[in-house]
Amino acid sequence: MEKKYDKIYAIARKRGIFWPSAELYGGLAGFYDYGPIGSLLKQNIEKEWKKLFIAQEGMLLLETPNIMPEDVFRASGHLEHFADPLVSCTKCGTNYRADKLIEEKLKLKTESMSVDEMNGTIIANKIPCQKCKGKLGETFKFNMMFGTQVGPGDEKRQVYLRPETAQGAFVSFERLWEIARKKLPFGAALVGRSYRNEISPRQALIRIREFTQAEAEVFFNPEEKHHPCFKMTQNEILQLLTSEEQKKGGDKLTKVTANDAVHKKVISSELQAYYLTLAKQFFNRIGFEDKVMRCRQQLPEERAHYSIDTWDIEIHSEDFGWVEVAAIADRGDYDLRRHSEVSKKSLTVTMQDGKKVLPHVMEASFGVDRPVYLLLEHSFKDDGKRTYFNFNKKVAPFEAAVFPLVNKDGLPEKALEVFNILLKNNIMAQFDSSGNIGKMYARADEIGIPVCITIDHQTLKDETVTVRDRDTTKQKRVHIKKNFELLHEIWEQD
Amino acid sequence: MEKKYDKIYAIARKRGIFWPSAELYGGLAGFYDYGPIGSLLKQNIEKEWKKLFIAQEGMLLLETPNIMPEDVFRASGHLEHFADPLVSCTKCGTNYRADKLIEEKLKLKTESMSVDEMNGTIIANKIPCQKCKGKLGETFKFNMMFGTQVGPGDEKRQVYLRPETAQGAFVSFERLWEIARKKLPFGAALVGRSYRNEISPRQALIRIREFTQAEAEVFFNPEEKHHPCFKMTQNEILQLLTSEEQKKGGDKLTKVTANDAVHKKVISSELQAYYLTLAKQFFNRIGFEDKVMRCRQQLPEERAHYSIDTWDIEIHSEDFGWVEVAAIADRGDYDLRRHSEVSKKSLTVTMQDGKKVLPHVMEASFGVDRPVYLLLEHSFKDDGKRTYFNFNKKVAPFEAAVFPLVNKDGLPEKALEVFNILLKNNIMAQFDSSGNIGKMYARADEIGIPVCITIDHQTLKDETVTVRDRDTTKQKRVHIKKNFELLHEIWEQD
Repeated sequence: MEKKYDKIYAIARKRGIFWPSAELYGGLAGFYDYGPIGSLLKQNIEKEWKKLFIAQEGMLLLETPNIMPEDVFRASGHLEHFADPLVSCTKCGTNYRADKLIEEKLKLKTESMSVDEMNGTIIANKIPCQKCKGKLGETFKFNMMFGTQVGPGDEKRQVYLRPETAQGAFVSFERLWEIARKKLPFGAALVGRSYRNEISPRQALIRIREFTQAEAEVFFNPEEKHHPCFKMTQNEILQLLTSEEQKKGGDKLTKVTANDAVHKKVISSELQAYYLTLAKQFFNRIGFEDKVMRCRQQLPEERAHYSIDTWDIEIHSEDFGWVEVAAIADRGDYDLRRHSEVSKKSLTVTMQDGKKVLPHVMEASFGVDRPVYLLLEHSFKDDGKRTYFNFNKKVAPFEAAVFPLVNKDGLPEKALEVFNILLKNNIMAQFDSSGNIGKMYARADEIGIPVCITIDHQTLKDETVTVRDRDTTKQKRVHIKKNFELLHEIWEQD
Repeated sequence: MEKKYDKIYAIARKRGIFWPSAELYGGLAGFYDYGPIGSLLKQNIEKEWKKLFIAQEGMLLLETPNIMPEDVFRASGHLEHFADPLVSCTKCGTNYRADKLIEEKLKLKTESMSVDEMNGTIIANKIPCQKCKGKLGETFKFNMMFGTQVGPGDEKRQVYLRPETAQGAFVSFERLWEIARKKLPFGAALVGRSYRNEISPRQALIRIREFTQAEAEVFFNPEEKHHPCFKMTQNEILQLLTSEEQKKGGDKLTKVTANDAVHKKVISSELQAYYLTLAKQFFNRIGFEDKVMRCRQQLPEERAHYSIDTWDIEIHSEDFGWVEVAAIADRGDYDLRRHSEVSKKSLTVTMQDGKKVLPHVMEASFGVDRPVYLLLEHSFKDDGKRTYFNFNKKVAPFEAAVFPLVNKDGLPEKALEVFNILLKNNIMAQFDSSGNIGKMYARADEIGIPVCITIDHQTLKDETVTVRDRDTTKQKRVHIKKNFELLHEIWEQD
């Protein structure tokens, strides 16, 4: 049976959603291009994220370089800890992630194994190269940062491509503190590319080497782990998979309100519960239903080196099971303490009551590429007669398509007039005038355009157009009015 | 006298517009962070660019990796040609761009000098190190690409950070051709980071090592250098500085319509004139007046290795003179020919009439960082009483500010209600409730917010608010109405 993944990937390449990078030169493993449809879809997901975290939550948006100096990663711990266990075949050179290899071949858990233990396990069990059966070499830690040098000659400085956008906020903490008018809590948010030299990138957009993150870093006073807006989200129902349940080997979800989760101490702070709820709401907004999502607490042994408690948002995939798409991590004082130690500058701040505080960080970190893939998987519909993506209007690459019924009699000109009204009102529309109306509808469906607006001979007489709904294929005639009124009529039909 | 640049730079750091990256670790020359105000300003410039090139022009948006394999740059010519002449002090190690040093010290033109000639010139004229007076070494070509390796062990591949986003479109040409339904012309557009290891980065955002580009690559049939929409822009007046005029040593501008420029063969094709006009209109839209802009034809010796004719858009800066912000380059068949040669795959396409064509490329390439700086410079107003940025509404970081007159009596709650109406209507607003009204106005002015909406006790009685215009400081009372009507009343006042 054809896997859903293969189907989506084939459609993605064909319809211009995404495809392997640099195909002309045989591709580059772990790198993908977003085509015209994928770029717009991805951009709209980012837009919704910014709407939530910047416009609504009032966080400080930052845009910082992908290249950062070595000291940053000495402080962050990435130089030391950001490594995967690598083992290579001594004969053919194929590389493996030792942990994944052990998990796959021996069905053993590796989260708490050291590199030495993995090395011993591979030797003891004589795991051979999966390709040529050759002997595997020694397992060692392979740092996943991409390094390069900035500046010529003696001025050369060792730098790295950031493995997470978050560091941009930490190293600018002093400026942000001033901008936030010296009050806690405040959040800083970044949307941009990050880089990880994965040993074995796979599953298209699920594990790639250059990816997009949207990260919110909230600096707070550890004595006040509350959020003023928690009351607005406290009744949201969360589906929690606790670490306790996982330790018992179970996967039963605890359904509780955010408020109860805090009071029953399932989630350790109101602040963490607030951002977990916000993250969940974000995925709802871009089109994921509750039934395909869960909140999973990370086990102590899986947590990143800086985290004291982390809850993931996971979305279910037919082929890949539960996939992590966001993580709400209580990073404690780790970040500012480490940057303070390495830079030898105090990052402690004085509160208005005179108290000195080294702020803690609550991080809400989102991947953008995985939600793109998962949205494709969950939005793809095939009813036997036609295939389409049922993207909601917030993320659909185009909000509307505009067609002349035939390519003559002044209809294309009239259609362009309607297109320009949409354009003027910031409605992303696609103009299409090639082929018959059936073909144009099919093409619009294939890329998930919610409504098609057709201009016909009657339009010239009475200024009415046909509006067709993607999901029901139902049509109705509406009157063209200037500005937003046109859109209101269209959008209000559902 | 204080330079304008110093003033803008100081304000930029203070108000959270931009600042040097990684200051905590002494900074990294040529890298800047955009703070909360700068990020929004920059994002809005990119948004307007996409509105023009993607939504209006219907170009195919792409998002491709920053990391690309070596073959791409072997084909593009960057491995061989993308280098600056470097000379270093044999004593203290300071690096100089040889061409800039010669221009500065000897007032000689260097555009047509070879590296050997520059080396000879420096030796013959005994130019010393400008810092320690030490002897300068040999001048050599320093490649400006940042290189790194992807993948572990034997699978390692040499890659580079892209020096221009454009290559992402060229290497995906085959896919784009399918998506464009095998018709020429069509455009592909990219907005993203590019990287150049400049020998001496300087002037803050003007010459940096990691920067943002917005590039449109139009593939066309060389026998049809026309554009169907040229008639819509043909009457736009262009201010041209021709290469002929420059060769005479002059800087007199030729003021002609786009149409006349084509017919008088000042601009060699309608296609190039069309994109030059579009580029000019883009800068108008984001807030630059005609009087601070000109279109300058590049001299043959300044043109990039791939270009057969290039026109720059330049914007005047008080301190830096004319600064290039966009370039419309006729790249001929260079790109597809080179990629075809190196990949050994034909990129020739068959037109509907059966003719075979290797498409040519017209490029409209924009820097984003320089316009940010220049916009700050041109928008900064100091009338003795107050300082403000008069950003237009399209690019202003916030479209509106919402204040409660006092922080009690239910006014903050009412103000939040108004804030949420704006939010719901996609209006980027800032909520501020700290300090007296004068301070809040001043803070809004400082970051160029066009209108301030104040909620006072009367609001609670009759649902009216005070709306204050940034530029005139005039106030008037308007009624709060739901949805867009509120905004219409506000925006329509001017």
